[in-house]
Amino acid sequence: MEFSEYFPIWDQLTPGQREAISGSLVSRAVKKGAILHGGGTDCTGLLLVKSGQLRAYILSREGREVTLYRLFDRDLCLFSASCVMRSIQFDMAITAEKDTELWVISADVYKQLMEQSAPLSNYTNEIMAARFSEVMWLMEQVMWNSMDRRVAAFLLEESAIEGVSRLSITHETIANHLGTHREVVTRMLRYLQGEGMVRLSRGVVELLDEKKLTALRDA
Amino acid sequence: MEFSEYFPIWDQLTPGQREAISGSLVSRAVKKGAILHGGGTDCTGLLLVKSGQLRAYILSREGREVTLYRLFDRDLCLFSASCVMRSIQFDMAITAEKDTELWVISADVYKQLMEQSAPLSNYTNEIMAARFSEVMWLMEQVMWNSMDRRVAAFLLEESAIEGVSRLSITHETIANHLGTHREVVTRMLRYLQGEGMVRLSRGVVELLDEKKLTALRDA
Repeated sequence: MEFSEYFPIWDQLTPGQREAISGSLVSRAVKKGAILHGGGTDCTGLLLVKSGQLRAYILSREGREVTLYRLFDRDLCLFSASCVMRSIQFDMAITAEKDTELWVISADVYKQLMEQSAPLSNYTNEIMAARFSEVMWLMEQVMWNSMDRRVAAFLLEESAIEGVSRLSITHETIANHLGTHREVVTRMLRYLQGEGMVRLSRGVVELLDEKKLTALRDA
Repeated sequence: MEFSEYFPIWDQLTPGQREAISGSLVSRAVKKGAILHGGGTDCTGLLLVKSGQLRAYILSREGREVTLYRLFDRDLCLFSASCVMRSIQFDMAITAEKDTELWVISADVYKQLMEQSAPLSNYTNEIMAARFSEVMWLMEQVMWNSMDRRVAAFLLEESAIEGVSRLSITHETIANHLGTHREVVTRMLRYLQGEGMVRLSRGVVELLDEKKLTALRDA
């Protein structure tokens, strides 16, 4: 599969614009756990996922984390190239959650093309709006939802992504997704286990009753 | 002052595009407290502030509020016209915090022009990135900062916006900005008063020691 098949507005670019992008591409394969963008002001470039899974998150000064969103096949990551827009005044970190193949697009080239091409600029707008929507969803979760509902929502989402009901995940990792402490997650999971919704064993959370978990999440 | 002087990329539009925007403009003057965009899926149009102050916020099902950001003179509000982009999958409410004069730009016209004009699309991108940055700042506040620091940050921001150290504001209103309960705000303000940072009286919070408040905010 070629880059052009992963880039939805390829047909709306001029031959010169296509050449500029193609010439700037770097193909990379990274292992699960690799840090692709470390925060700070470096401009890594835009990342287009060919296969695999990336995670975008923010970090507190004390090292706590909270997951903003995930990127899957065909998703484009803008915020590893925040230099493309001067109004992007925040930073996030990006890691590979699975072995991932991707293309890196030069931020300079992308920025230049965006200035010429209304289709590319509108496409970028749509991507930013989609990420903004995910962050707004998270904001609503954090503001209005109690931690038991957020843990239930997280377990259901993970289970849907992985396609299994038996999740190999530590309490520490769940805490890092949700921006809380391990002890809080352990307490919530034990509560969910007491209610018959999950079963806990070392490094594993098994979903026993998705219906009850869903009802809790949507309560 | 004309619309063209408030719209920074006016010079980069074609005469036909300028005419389309001018033809779609509605000038409005609203009183403090007016609700300009009520949430739901209606597409009110883009709002360009001529003078005054707007507030963008989200609401919980129980009626709790949290302020996302403010809009001042020359600011453009995109999210009252979420129909311009299909990827905007969230909603916010917009009210006038002061008597406000503004222009409403038709969402349909704006959407059509954005599809043709790279400058307009890039301008829209910059605005969305700026609002995204404000929401990310808020997310970091909510995730990592304790409520005492958030109250200190809010009081300093209000004082800077109003240009006074004596704020006419109720504890209820502060709670609605910060997404918390009135009782929590009252407790925090009493703590700040005990530390000599503010003085409280009916409907008034007076900042006595901005240095200490700033130190608390940045701690």
